[in-house]
Amino acid sequence: MKVIETLPSEDGFYMPAEFSPHYGCILIFPERSDSWQYGAYAARKAFVQVCTAIARSEKVTVCASSRQYENARRMLPSHIRVVEMSSNDSWARDYCPTFVTNGRVIRGINWSFNAWGGLTDGLYFPWDKDDRMARKLCDLYDKSMYDASGFVLEGGSIHSDGEGTILTTEACLLSAGRNPDLTKEQIEEKLKQYLGAEKVIWLERGIYNDETNEHVDNICAFVKPGEVVLGWTDDKSDPQYELSRSCLEILENSTDAKGRKIRVHKLRLPKPVTITAEECAGLDTMDFQPTRTPGERLAASYVNFYISNGAVVMPFFNDPADEPARAKLAELFPDREIIPIYARDILIGGGNIHCITQQIPAFSAEESQSP
Amino acid sequence: MKVIETLPSEDGFYMPAEFSPHYGCILIFPERSDSWQYGAYAARKAFVQVCTAIARSEKVTVCASSRQYENARRMLPSHIRVVEMSSNDSWARDYCPTFVTNGRVIRGINWSFNAWGGLTDGLYFPWDKDDRMARKLCDLYDKSMYDASGFVLEGGSIHSDGEGTILTTEACLLSAGRNPDLTKEQIEEKLKQYLGAEKVIWLERGIYNDETNEHVDNICAFVKPGEVVLGWTDDKSDPQYELSRSCLEILENSTDAKGRKIRVHKLRLPKPVTITAEECAGLDTMDFQPTRTPGERLAASYVNFYISNGAVVMPFFNDPADEPARAKLAELFPDREIIPIYARDILIGGGNIHCITQQIPAFSAEESQSP
Repeated sequence: MKVIETLPSEDGFYMPAEFSPHYGCILIFPERSDSWQYGAYAARKAFVQVCTAIARSEKVTVCASSRQYENARRMLPSHIRVVEMSSNDSWARDYCPTFVTNGRVIRGINWSFNAWGGLTDGLYFPWDKDDRMARKLCDLYDKSMYDASGFVLEGGSIHSDGEGTILTTEACLLSAGRNPDLTKEQIEEKLKQYLGAEKVIWLERGIYNDETNEHVDNICAFVKPGEVVLGWTDDKSDPQYELSRSCLEILENSTDAKGRKIRVHKLRLPKPVTITAEECAGLDTMDFQPTRTPGERLAASYVNFYISNGAVVMPFFNDPADEPARAKLAELFPDREIIPIYARDILIGGGNIHCITQQIPAFSAEESQSP
Repeated sequence: MKVIETLPSEDGFYMPAEFSPHYGCILIFPERSDSWQYGAYAARKAFVQVCTAIARSEKVTVCASSRQYENARRMLPSHIRVVEMSSNDSWARDYCPTFVTNGRVIRGINWSFNAWGGLTDGLYFPWDKDDRMARKLCDLYDKSMYDASGFVLEGGSIHSDGEGTILTTEACLLSAGRNPDLTKEQIEEKLKQYLGAEKVIWLERGIYNDETNEHVDNICAFVKPGEVVLGWTDDKSDPQYELSRSCLEILENSTDAKGRKIRVHKLRLPKPVTITAEECAGLDTMDFQPTRTPGERLAASYVNFYISNGAVVMPFFNDPADEPARAKLAELFPDREIIPIYARDILIGGGNIHCITQQIPAFSAEESQSP
C-alpha cells in the first residue's frame, strides 16, 4: 500500500457524493456488549438486514473480529464477503477510509480517530483498533492512501455534493476533544485540501443529544447537488426545534461551491425515542458505569440513511412519521428503491444506518502498486 | 463465499502445476516464539526476503495477526499487500487453500488441518485458527470453496503436474494422526476427486527427521510434466540414503497419468544441518518442554523451493552443495531467475520456502457470487 505524500486537492482528487456510483460498501460486524444489548445479538440481526439490502445493488464487505468471524459468515448471505479485521466497535462511517477519486482511480484517506472526543469527551477507551482500520482497508483493497493522521475527523461529520461543497457542523468539528489547537479557518482548509472542495457550509448544530457531538450525517444530507434533506420538527417545545431551525436558516442563506442557492427538503423526525429500562439492562457496563440510562433520549433521525447504487436504505422507528419519511425519500430519489429497516437495535448503539456503512466509489482503473 | 456441494473432478476442476502461471502468492507473517527463535525476529527478516523475491513477478499478500500487523506493514515493501488474519503459525502451504481451476475460474479447497497429526503426533495444540484460514482466504479472494473438511490434508503433502498426476508420500498420508479410518485406496480416491487427477504416485518416505511425517514437498517436486527433482545423498551412512533410494526406485518404475516414464533429476542435499544450543536457547518452550534439542537434525533440502511466475526462490544453507543445487535448478528452469535466500532461520521453524507459501493460479474470469 502506497502512502501518498501530497494532498488530494493538489492531485486532482475529491470526495464524490454518496449518490454517485459505488464499487461497494464496508460494514463492521457488531460485537461490543456495552454498545449493543444482549451481547450485540439484536444488533447483529439488524446489521444483517442492512448488509443484505445494500448487497442487492453493490458488493458488500463485512469486517468481523476473529471471535465473530464464523458467526458473521453463518448469518450473512454467501454473496457478501466477510474478512477478518479487529476493531473496537462497528462504526464503519467514522473510521473506515473516506475515499477520494480523480474520476479514474480511487485513494483512501486515513484520518485520526479518537472515539468522538478522546480523553475530553470520547465515548470509549481505547480506540486503537478502530484507528488502524482505514490503513488496513486501503491495504486490503490495494488502494493508495493519503495519511491525514494528526487531524481528527470522522466520516459521519462530513457530507460532500461531489461538486466542491462540504456540509459539516460546528458542534462537532470545533469541539474541544478533536482539534482544539486548530482554528475554524484552519479546519476548513484541511477539509478543502483533503476532500478537494472549494466551499464548506457550516451548520451550527445537529440532532439533540447526539453523542457524536452532533454529526452532520444525522441532521442533513445531500440528495443531489444543490438540494438537501434536513431533520425537522414543528414542535417548538422540543429542544430539537431550535437546532433544526438554526440549520434551516443557515442553509437558506447559503450558496454552494457552484453558486447555487441550497434547496431544503424537510424530513420530519419521529417522536422522541427513549431507551427503556429493559433495554438498558441488556447492556454491559463500561468503566463500572451503565452506558445508557432508562428514559434517555436517543438521536433518532430519518436522515441517517445510506444511498446504495440501487436503493436508499433508511431507518424506521415504528412511528407515524415513518411512512411520510419514506414517501419523501421516494419522491427525492425517483430512480432508487426505498428499503426501510426497523433500526431501533442500531439506534441503541448510538447511531444509525449511515453510521455503520462506508461507501467505496466506483473506479475505472487500478493505480499501479508495483515497486 | 459460495460453498460448492459437488466435487472438483465432477466439475472439470483440477490442481494446476506450480510452474503454471500464477495470480499471486499468500504467506503468513511469523510470530510464534516457540517455533521461531528470538520472538520470530530472525524468521521475519527471512520471510521478508522471500516475500520480496516472489513479489518481483507476482502479487504477494501477507496475512498478519492484529498484534503483528503494524510490524509487517513496516517491514514489507509497499507493493506487498498485508491483511489482518489470525493463525496459530505461519505455514501457508499447509493450511491456506489449495486452488483448483477449470482453465477460466479458480476455486479453493478447504481441507481439514490438525497440526500434522492432531492429538496423535501433531506439533502444537490448538490449531483452530490455522484450520479456519482456507475458508477465510476463499472469502477474502471472493472465490467459491469446495469443503473437504473431514479429510485431513496439508498442501505440503501433495504436488501436481497439472496433467493428472499427483505425487505424495505414504509416510505422511497413511500416518496414524491424519485419516486412520480411511484405506490407502480411499485416500487415493479423495486426492483424485478433489485434485482432478487420474494417477497418484506414492513415494514411501521423505526427508529424514521431517516432523511433518515427511511431506513430499521437501523431497520431490515436478519441474515440468514427466520430470522431477529428488533430494539426494550419495552418503550410504546417512539415514537419508535409504529414504532417497526408495523414492528413486519408485519414480524410475512409475509412469504418470499420460503414460510417460518419470525422469528424475537428483538434487544433492546439504550436509546434515543441526540446531545449535544458542539457537535452542532463543526458542520459547511449549507445554513446559523445549521445542528443539541442541544437535537435533533439521530437515534441510533444496527441493523446498517456490516457483513464482518469474523465478525459483530456493533455500541456501551456507553449504558447499548450495551452488551446485542453484546451477541444477537454473538448468531445469531456463526461463526463470533463480533467487537463493539464506534460509536457516526458516528451517529452524521446521520447514522451508515452499512450506511458507501458497500460490494462487492465474484465472481469466470471475465466478459470479451474486445471489
